[in-house]
Amino acid sequence: MEKIFASIITIGDELLIGQVVDTNSPWMAQELNKIGVAVKHRVAVGDAWDDIWYALDEESKHADIILITGGLGPTADDITKPLLCEYFGGKMVVDEPTLAHVTHIFANILKRPMIERNAKQAEVPDVCTVLKNEVGTAPGMLFERDGKIFIAMPGVPHEMKWLMSNQILPLIPTKFKAPIIEHRTLLTAGIGESFLAELIQDFEAALPANIKLAYLPHYGMVRLRLTSSGFDKDAIIQQLDYQFTELKQQVSAYLVIDEDITLQAAVAQLLKKYGKTLATAESCTGGYIAHLITAMPGSSAYFTGSVVCYDNRIKTELLGVSNEVLHTVGAVSEQTVTLMASNIVKLMNTDYGIAVSGIMGPSGATDEKPVGLVWIAVADSQRVITKQFNLRFDRERNIQMTAINALNMMRMLIVDNH
Amino acid sequence: MEKIFASIITIGDELLIGQVVDTNSPWMAQELNKIGVAVKHRVAVGDAWDDIWYALDEESKHADIILITGGLGPTADDITKPLLCEYFGGKMVVDEPTLAHVTHIFANILKRPMIERNAKQAEVPDVCTVLKNEVGTAPGMLFERDGKIFIAMPGVPHEMKWLMSNQILPLIPTKFKAPIIEHRTLLTAGIGESFLAELIQDFEAALPANIKLAYLPHYGMVRLRLTSSGFDKDAIIQQLDYQFTELKQQVSAYLVIDEDITLQAAVAQLLKKYGKTLATAESCTGGYIAHLITAMPGSSAYFTGSVVCYDNRIKTELLGVSNEVLHTVGAVSEQTVTLMASNIVKLMNTDYGIAVSGIMGPSGATDEKPVGLVWIAVADSQRVITKQFNLRFDRERNIQMTAINALNMMRMLIVDNH
Repeated sequence: MEKIFASIITIGDELLIGQVVDTNSPWMAQELNKIGVAVKHRVAVGDAWDDIWYALDEESKHADIILITGGLGPTADDITKPLLCEYFGGKMVVDEPTLAHVTHIFANILKRPMIERNAKQAEVPDVCTVLKNEVGTAPGMLFERDGKIFIAMPGVPHEMKWLMSNQILPLIPTKFKAPIIEHRTLLTAGIGESFLAELIQDFEAALPANIKLAYLPHYGMVRLRLTSSGFDKDAIIQQLDYQFTELKQQVSAYLVIDEDITLQAAVAQLLKKYGKTLATAESCTGGYIAHLITAMPGSSAYFTGSVVCYDNRIKTELLGVSNEVLHTVGAVSEQTVTLMASNIVKLMNTDYGIAVSGIMGPSGATDEKPVGLVWIAVADSQRVITKQFNLRFDRERNIQMTAINALNMMRMLIVDNH
Repeated sequence: MEKIFASIITIGDELLIGQVVDTNSPWMAQELNKIGVAVKHRVAVGDAWDDIWYALDEESKHADIILITGGLGPTADDITKPLLCEYFGGKMVVDEPTLAHVTHIFANILKRPMIERNAKQAEVPDVCTVLKNEVGTAPGMLFERDGKIFIAMPGVPHEMKWLMSNQILPLIPTKFKAPIIEHRTLLTAGIGESFLAELIQDFEAALPANIKLAYLPHYGMVRLRLTSSGFDKDAIIQQLDYQFTELKQQVSAYLVIDEDITLQAAVAQLLKKYGKTLATAESCTGGYIAHLITAMPGSSAYFTGSVVCYDNRIKTELLGVSNEVLHTVGAVSEQTVTLMASNIVKLMNTDYGIAVSGIMGPSGATDEKPVGLVWIAVADSQRVITKQFNLRFDRERNIQMTAINALNMMRMLIVDNH
């Protein structure tokens, strides 16, 4: 089977000194996958002429589509455009539609005078096809050579996404006949990667050769992904669904959800399905659970709000945790989270409530309460379920693990109620 | 000057289909930079034998140190270890100290029976030096060839970080004499990249050849970074500091902070410096501002808490926004955020308060109030400062931009008060 391969080249010194995290490439890879293009390779290079040139040579050996982001800004450290011009043997010319677009942006949107440097954004190599960027000043540029295509885009995430969605992804199927790539993903909790592998080893050994199984551990949960590809879509889907049904049965005791969605999205689905509402009372997670939920569009339909009670006084005044409780068993205790959970349900008038309190580190530990000790409670109007955790990670991961465990306890309570 | 170059190879299909964001590489790059090692290249390859092999060949052409993460797990899709064994011409042997360590972890920490698959973690190529991983079962492995070193680590972030910090970073200076690499970074707000470049173009043109200037735009702010390297640390620092002082003067009207820290860390520094406290009342950011602050260790010293008032009823009941205000001017209005800000200061008994309300999209817009309309207020006990924003991005970026703008308004209010 003839696969279509892409390479992603990201350009910028900031990627090599670790000043930014590359979230562009994963997004691009996901979108390419949906149209049957497999990403073969991803490379990051600095703002250095020779390194970019070498990467273009190298990646074009292995891929049909070479996607390039970054280095198209108006400043002197951005060398991608002149380099591409020389690489493809062109000369720089003003692209009139782009100049009109840049002029329009400055006159009507930014309402600032345009300077020479901005007008330069409209200069492009005469050997490229200009891909209009409606949400920024730097256009996309398409080059073709030896049956391969090279597309350069700005590295600003929302501009890259706009160009990919509106220009590049629609263009690729007109140039290449890509196979179908299908994935089926499920999420498990409560079982480690090794034990899961043990549990399904016969299933794995018996999988048809064209179906690939991957284990993706993430914050104490493991995602399992089956992948198949080919040109007969119906046959691929039928075979993949058959194996996926089998896999779901084998891991049913640990199955969280049989879709490639986040745990918070799984909780949101349940709340919407049953018409229920949720609020959180967060000490150690400091609003992170509320953020995970409200980052999802439409969350106002089921999420009422949160009290982040970092200071113990707020636990007392807003969440009814008495000074006596705080002084005897302390803020990180079963009693405290029980009160927080049942009272956030009352305060916010919701069906469900989540409460967390713990010591995330690196400081804050006492002799009795080490870093990583966390109490979580989930409540409805009838009952409160609590659980103690002893996390063993750094602050960032402890916060994330607390949120994941709290959301999973919430999920189980809702499932149990229906 | 003889520079020491590193390449980072990350292994795993999940990186190529976009299922995970690689946060390991930026962290590794930062740490390598601190000890004078420049990252030349970063590549991501799938769990495919030929691709990994090719990447090892290729990266060793350009780098002195090749760091490899991922593919060391106990499941069948992890092929890195046998591949490295064959690549370096060794055979697999049991490493007794690792076996004892893995046995210890299962017996005393996980308290689960160990299975054959876990014991396999203790098998290593006999041509490597084992680097003990105290926080996980897969050890690091060091290979040497032709004056270059290759180090394989697990991809689990906290295990990679532990191995880097405790084994690999201390080891590198014993193998290579690396130059000093120094950076000076400042953060600006309120000026676009092009205008900033215009403002400092004479400065940039006059920079000594060994100092490099980079523009790093990020969420409506621009970071400027000066970089120099060499073996005479004092001379480098003196020259860099001289240029950095000059740069700070030139951009003084837009300078947020002259360190490479986040805006929330800059706000935290000010609060600690003046002994002040902060609380937030968040509608559209849904707890994200509180999360940014509480993600920093020690934030309980100055952060009291937050009310996430996603439901309007919470705005009324906890933050004193009357039904009349909500019905006349609405939840996304200057009046609403003014009340939220002044009342969160009273409710949480803090010196400062932040309040935000807006329409983050994609839904929720009305004829008068489009997606991206945001009102932000910052308050102390004496006054409330408000500002309207019209953001033009997607939900995720609108939330982030709102948080950044709110933190910057907070910063300016504190600075203005002192």
